[in-house]
Amino acid sequence: MSPAQERISDAVAARRAGHSLDGPFYTDRDFFDFDIEAVFARQWIFVAVEADLPEPGDRTTVEFGPYSVIVLRDDDEGLRAFHNVCRHRGARLLDPGQASGGNLVCGYHKWTYATDGSLLHAPSQAADFDRSCFVLKPVHVRGVGGLVFICLAERPPADFDEVASRIEPYLLPHDLRRTRVAARTELVEDGNWKLVMENNRECYHCDGHPELLRTFFPTYGYTEADVPARLRPAHERYLRADAEMRATYTGLGLPYGLIEELAERPTGFRIQRDALDLAGESFTPDGTAACRRRLGDLPTPRLGHLSLHMQPNAWFHVVGDHAITFSVLPLTPDKTLLRTTWLVHPEAEEGVDYDRDTLLKVWTATNEQDARLVARAQQGVGGPAYEPGPYAPGEYQVEAFCAWYLARLSEELQR
Amino acid sequence: MSPAQERISDAVAARRAGHSLDGPFYTDRDFFDFDIEAVFARQWIFVAVEADLPEPGDRTTVEFGPYSVIVLRDDDEGLRAFHNVCRHRGARLLDPGQASGGNLVCGYHKWTYATDGSLLHAPSQAADFDRSCFVLKPVHVRGVGGLVFICLAERPPADFDEVASRIEPYLLPHDLRRTRVAARTELVEDGNWKLVMENNRECYHCDGHPELLRTFFPTYGYTEADVPARLRPAHERYLRADAEMRATYTGLGLPYGLIEELAERPTGFRIQRDALDLAGESFTPDGTAACRRRLGDLPTPRLGHLSLHMQPNAWFHVVGDHAITFSVLPLTPDKTLLRTTWLVHPEAEEGVDYDRDTLLKVWTATNEQDARLVARAQQGVGGPAYEPGPYAPGEYQVEAFCAWYLARLSEELQR
Amino acid sequence: MSPAQERISDAVAARRAGHSLDGPFYTDRDFFDFDIEAVFARQWIFVAVEADLPEPGDRTTVEFGPYSVIVLRDDDEGLRAFHNVCRHRGARLLDPGQASGGNLVCGYHKWTYATDGSLLHAPSQAADFDRSCFVLKPVHVRGVGGLVFICLAERPPADFDEVASRIEPYLLPHDLRRTRVAARTELVEDGNWKLVMENNRECYHCDGHPELLRTFFPTYGYTEADVPARLRPAHERYLRADAEMRATYTGLGLPYGLIEELAERPTGFRIQRDALDLAGESFTPDGTAACRRRLGDLPTPRLGHLSLHMQPNAWFHVVGDHAITFSVLPLTPDKTLLRTTWLVHPEAEEGVDYDRDTLLKVWTATNEQDARLVARAQQGVGGPAYEPGPYAPGEYQVEAFCAWYLARLSEELQR
Repeated sequence: MSPAQERISDAVAARRAGHSLDGPFYTDRDFFDFDIEAVFARQWIFVAVEADLPEPGDRTTVEFGPYSVIVLRDDDEGLRAFHNVCRHRGARLLDPGQASGGNLVCGYHKWTYATDGSLLHAPSQAADFDRSCFVLKPVHVRGVGGLVFICLAERPPADFDEVASRIEPYLLPHDLRRTRVAARTELVEDGNWKLVMENNRECYHCDGHPELLRTFFPTYGYTEADVPARLRPAHERYLRADAEMRATYTGLGLPYGLIEELAERPTGFRIQRDALDLAGESFTPDGTAACRRRLGDLPTPRLGHLSLHMQPNAWFHVVGDHAITFSVLPLTPDKTLLRTTWLVHPEAEEGVDYDRDTLLKVWTATNEQDARLVARAQQGVGGPAYEPGPYAPGEYQVEAFCAWYLARLSEELQR
Repeated sequence: MSPAQERISDAVAARRAGHSLDGPFYTDRDFFDFDIEAVFARQWIFVAVEADLPEPGDRTTVEFGPYSVIVLRDDDEGLRAFHNVCRHRGARLLDPGQASGGNLVCGYHKWTYATDGSLLHAPSQAADFDRSCFVLKPVHVRGVGGLVFICLAERPPADFDEVASRIEPYLLPHDLRRTRVAARTELVEDGNWKLVMENNRECYHCDGHPELLRTFFPTYGYTEADVPARLRPAHERYLRADAEMRATYTGLGLPYGLIEELAERPTGFRIQRDALDLAGESFTPDGTAACRRRLGDLPTPRLGHLSLHMQPNAWFHVVGDHAITFSVLPLTPDKTLLRTTWLVHPEAEEGVDYDRDTLLKVWTATNEQDARLVARAQQGVGGPAYEPGPYAPGEYQVEAFCAWYLARLSEELQR
Repeated sequence: MSPAQERISDAVAARRAGHSLDGPFYTDRDFFDFDIEAVFARQWIFVAVEADLPEPGDRTTVEFGPYSVIVLRDDDEGLRAFHNVCRHRGARLLDPGQASGGNLVCGYHKWTYATDGSLLHAPSQAADFDRSCFVLKPVHVRGVGGLVFICLAERPPADFDEVASRIEPYLLPHDLRRTRVAARTELVEDGNWKLVMENNRECYHCDGHPELLRTFFPTYGYTEADVPARLRPAHERYLRADAEMRATYTGLGLPYGLIEELAERPTGFRIQRDALDLAGESFTPDGTAACRRRLGDLPTPRLGHLSLHMQPNAWFHVVGDHAITFSVLPLTPDKTLLRTTWLVHPEAEEGVDYDRDTLLKVWTATNEQDARLVARAQQGVGGPAYEPGPYAPGEYQVEAFCAWYLARLSEELQR
């Protein structure tokens, strides 16, 4: 073990269960680099939606830690991913962002790659130059119900197939592959990627989200017995809405039961279909749909929301009229990119079928509120006076995330 | 000893007395971190004035190195200080700056602390949760004649009581507790905190301060024999003014003698009441008072200035009509915050009793001039071509500061 | 060896000939610091032109890595160079940039140095203060045909005299000492200094330089046999122009033969007089001179260009009507300053004899295009997915640069 790994190993061993992680996990450069190695270069991570790449030749890039990866639709309409580095002298092939086109041509010396990564042309080489030795380095990629995941590891976690088979039945009725990207925001948060994930794993802080709490029940994460008195009225509404939703889901044949396997497997996840408050259709001030066209052309807008968490870096909400995907991409120990994407029916027209501001309002506000909380947490845990504190029962998913994360570090330390 | 401590120890041992410190003391991250540990987390440091906190619930924060500390007036009108970190998941409790209010409520999950630091309320906890285990971490705090000092160490330096007892008689006649903050500036200087302190410990460079030199005698730091010919006229004026002032001080019962114990004790300090040039009342172009109301309602405006230096991080000037406090707060190896505060009589009205620009002009200009000098010094000592050079006799206080500082490092290295 | 030196030594040993360097050479702080030590503090580096310092007292500064150096014309009209650090407390003496003046006076405490570096005056010193111990630290400096080089090493590379004697005959006919600085640009490139140099050592990427390729033959670096079919017409033009130029050079007694000793000596260099396309006079859209006055008052404007490369940090182009010098100054592992200077006849008047935009256009555009390529290369080589790739035959000078550079590191590692 390197000295850095010894420090990490000691910190993993010293962690007190049920308490927030120690400061270096959030602030130390060595810990961050190890996170990339042990988590982001090992696990399947969510990076795009198939709607980003509708046509052959469509491409997008994703950047995290020291990596830049090209995700593209190849000439055979399959998904492909490659490291975004020319095999000649290492120049970046594509600028960040989305584009369309044919072959991938390096801007430096015009080395030209096909969409399958093969090197088609390298000008002016010596006679013994073998193009087949210089294909773009491939990255594993796969779509799951319209969501695109990549894995940098040579051998990806073996349990992803099973997880995919369990979440796809929840996703398929919404036909996310047949959607259009209505909007995307990129928010750089001033905090470690784990603080961004932990923030999302509990609603203990939801009082800070007035827009979200119009429709999102604030009792999320509470057990029946723990619901505090001030939340009892909301809880009563929840019980009624929940009963109604279950009947709707059953009638439509939509799977809805909670599966929560956050800490016990490499590909930790949680999925559940759940009621929303007020009109119960969407994340809007009155709970009515933001878009007239429904995803998957389902027969009713009142579907609550399908909520999916995927470790290490994503969460998703699907309502009757749109879907929102959230991708968490670590930049530095204290900077994280949150990329949020709104998907609507492919034929939904802005200004006709939906108002863009209404569609984006709740989660844009919620993201910004969360970013402020994450920044405050980063500031505090960065100082010597910080000492890990205890999670409340309603933060059990944060604890599960931490346990999952530490298991990944332990695995990597034992390689 | 860690490798970093060994390097520091070697550098302390290699230091040549009477010469400026070697480059790494000003530029190296390890040295900076050790400065925080050995000096700023051990000594009493000046951070605020009581006039910042006139009412119960008033609070301010101070940031230096990796620390953020809350200083507040508690419900019993006492001073309190706490680390600015929630005991739950470590979020920063207060934003930088001053505020008023009641309990301290964390913005993340509403953990609520009383002004004595006790945890009043943490929502939705398990049955066995013991609030008394999660009080805010206290920091030592005390007022001395209206000046507020904190100490992060568990056991603060033992000699501070004695120092306080010796400087208070000089301060009390000016009644700084009964003042109002007329203005505050925050200047981030591009230099190590020691360069900021060293700059202030000599007037060898005062030719660069034309505004200050209207009233501040440029012979500061010279012995009688060393006064250069060009400064003889100023020195003659000084001798006359000094004789007059001594008579005034004696008549009013104001202590005025020089006490200079910069290097010989943990709480190094220097205090002296001294004449000013021209009208001799204040730091203004003609030396007349900038404010009509006098601090402590003393019977004459012509009092010269009370000059106080406190190691590691502060200096003070009190004239008849106002007081100026300077607090030096290290941010990074090459960035330092200088926080300057102007205090006036509590009933002095801006625009009526004083003109704000006149009040601030001299020390604002002087601070900016010094910041430019500090930046040039930082640039030079950061390169391999820098070699410590000799202090002139007029820089003896800089040498005393360095000796004091190195003694603190040695003490810490021996812990 | 320190651990850093061991890593560098391993990387030097592991380098595969004919391939681009491994990532850490371009991105790692330790490697960068060692580059400064082994290359920029050992070799003669190009920093200015004599035209920057026409009069006694003229001075300029040059900054690279942690160094700042003053280059000046002393009172006896000789060149001098000094470390830009006061011998008192280390303050920077001169601000970056050019100035004129007499003695060098430190802005902090008025220590005053003559243009020969001797300390003339230090105010208020003790009786035993010996001024002769505090002269400015000298740096080797010399002019070669109007170009100014400095060397920080105590003992500069022994072969520079010989190199100077071989390049001066090429330079002297253009009388660069008798020129005027028409313009200077400073471009901070987002890449390691070696990427800037490597980019300049080949024309394999020249398709990205449409302005330059109006007159610069794109077959630069190709052997006769390797010229690709698409470049055959240009090559035919080149052969005709080359034959004509050789006759011109012979007639005028101008040395023109290629000397290429890039890798085989400490002061690696390459010099050649070569034809330009179209009118063949200058780097302009139609190849005609940009300035009516010719350098050295040579009898014809149609002289092609004199091309000089000097390792580690410079290249030069001299055409009949002007000269352009390029100085590469490392700032950080991923930032490099490119300082470009345009020289014209001392009596050439802007707006009369030349149009400034026309004069600057080609190389300004070319520099900016190269900066974008360098930035893409830096991005790519900074990630774990980068693997050194093979140089094409036309990149043989890049390989020579790398071999030269690695030899310098090896030498330094063996000291």
